Amino acid sequence: MRNIRLIISYDGTNFHGFQTQPKLRTVQGQLQEAIEQLTGEYVQVIGSGRTDAGVHAEGQVANFHTSSKIPVDKWPHALNAVLPDDLVVRAAREVSPTFHARFDAKGKIYRYQIDRSVFPDVFVRRYAWHVSYPLDVGKMAQAASHMVGCHDFTSFCNAATPLEDRRRHVTDIRISEAGHLLHVTVSGKGFLWNMVRIMAGTLVDVGKGRIMPDEIPTIIHAQDRTYAGVTAPAHGLTLVQVEYED
Amino acid sequence: MRNIRLIISYDGTNFHGFQTQPKLRTVQGQLQEAIEQLTGEYVQVIGSGRTDAGVHAEGQVANFHTSSKIPVDKWPHALNAVLPDDLVVRAAREVSPTFHARFDAKGKIYRYQIDRSVFPDVFVRRYAWHVSYPLDVGKMAQAASHMVGCHDFTSFCNAATPLEDRRRHVTDIRISEAGHLLHVTVSGKGFLWNMVRIMAGTLVDVGKGRIMPDEIPTIIHAQDRTYAGVTAPAHGLTLVQVEYED
Repeated sequence: MRNIRLIISYDGTNFHGFQTQPKLRTVQGQLQEAIEQLTGEYVQVIGSGRTDAGVHAEGQVANFHTSSKIPVDKWPHALNAVLPDDLVVRAAREVSPTFHARFDAKGKIYRYQIDRSVFPDVFVRRYAWHVSYPLDVGKMAQAASHMVGCHDFTSFCNAATPLEDRRRHVTDIRISEAGHLLHVTVSGKGFLWNMVRIMAGTLVDVGKGRIMPDEIPTIIHAQDRTYAGVTAPAHGLTLVQVEYED
Repeated sequence: MRNIRLIISYDGTNFHGFQTQPKLRTVQGQLQEAIEQLTGEYVQVIGSGRTDAGVHAEGQVANFHTSSKIPVDKWPHALNAVLPDDLVVRAAREVSPTFHARFDAKGKIYRYQIDRSVFPDVFVRRYAWHVSYPLDVGKMAQAASHMVGCHDFTSFCNAATPLEDRRRHVTDIRISEAGHLLHVTVSGKGFLWNMVRIMAGTLVDVGKGRIMPDEIPTIIHAQDRTYAGVTAPAHGLTLVQVEYED
């Protein structure tokens, strides 16, 4: 059996998230179907993590074990030939039999995109949250600096998150402007359910003046979801990159 | 009666072009329906020109006459509230009663977008032609320079174009690289049916080495569609701007 590692990209608009669900169109489901079509084997595709319905990926990483003899450099072409056009395999390589896309992930980078135009830019409407209300980007950057570090992020995760250790290490948050678009790029060793979306939503509330930057430490300390801001919509979020030790 | 001039933007993917057609979803049709919903008046919306099915616009210009008392600065908000999300009114102003979006247009700028990635970038798949074959951009620029000027563009229009004066003045063609994307930006006083798409397709054939840059004058001189290259697909084309004397 060989262990194949893929880098994949998808437009999350028409997927019910990454993970297989009965009768729903998911990234994992489409990948497994494509592999089965090529090899006749039913395999389990392991992603670096789930992405919610509507969330996109530029560089999601996944792996699967196969007895197929297809040379590794042929996998992207072969898979892309049978995959739908909103899911693309960008690269494939053979890795050690023990490599596990989820357990071995050392860090992830997410980008949250905000369209600040007065009227929505139709070309990014599927990939950006339209916020026409004026945002104070300086205050957003101040607030973001309080989020960096190792904290218990209970206030920044979906209230239905199972009980678990909610400490996470956010290594960097960058806020950058590109014309009418605002990018919030968050790097960390791991994230809780909806964590980046709640961080982005809270930063937008800061930008609007509804939350002050120096309230962030209090919000974190509260360990209570109701203290933080809104959950930003899924369609503005993209998983940019997953980092591994190699 | 007031004459209202709009700047509109649309994602052409799900439109059967600009011009109304019975039972088909068109930009003009959607605008007319929206205006009727707001005012109760059936108006004729005049565009600066038709765009083909699948072609996009950042800055299409249109006008219509209305007896509605809606203040002109309220029109974009009012229309966007009833328009579908792939069609956005960016601006509105009242113009002289004789202004005509088509007859008064002095020039247009189109951009043709090419995705040069090995595998398609899913996020621009609706807005760029995917060409993984390596392109010689220097040769494309050389070829483009031969297209600039006042020529009979019979070789660069759809063979079904009605008999008319096919001389057109192309004032500028710029080829620019933005990462894996290649932009061909064409400015001119007016264009024939499919002209920019055939220019873009021919430039890609030059980039692939199938046509030499110095063959362009011969192709123009032939006044025969079969001499030029392929018609690039509609979805890579965007009407960027329409110019008027004011």
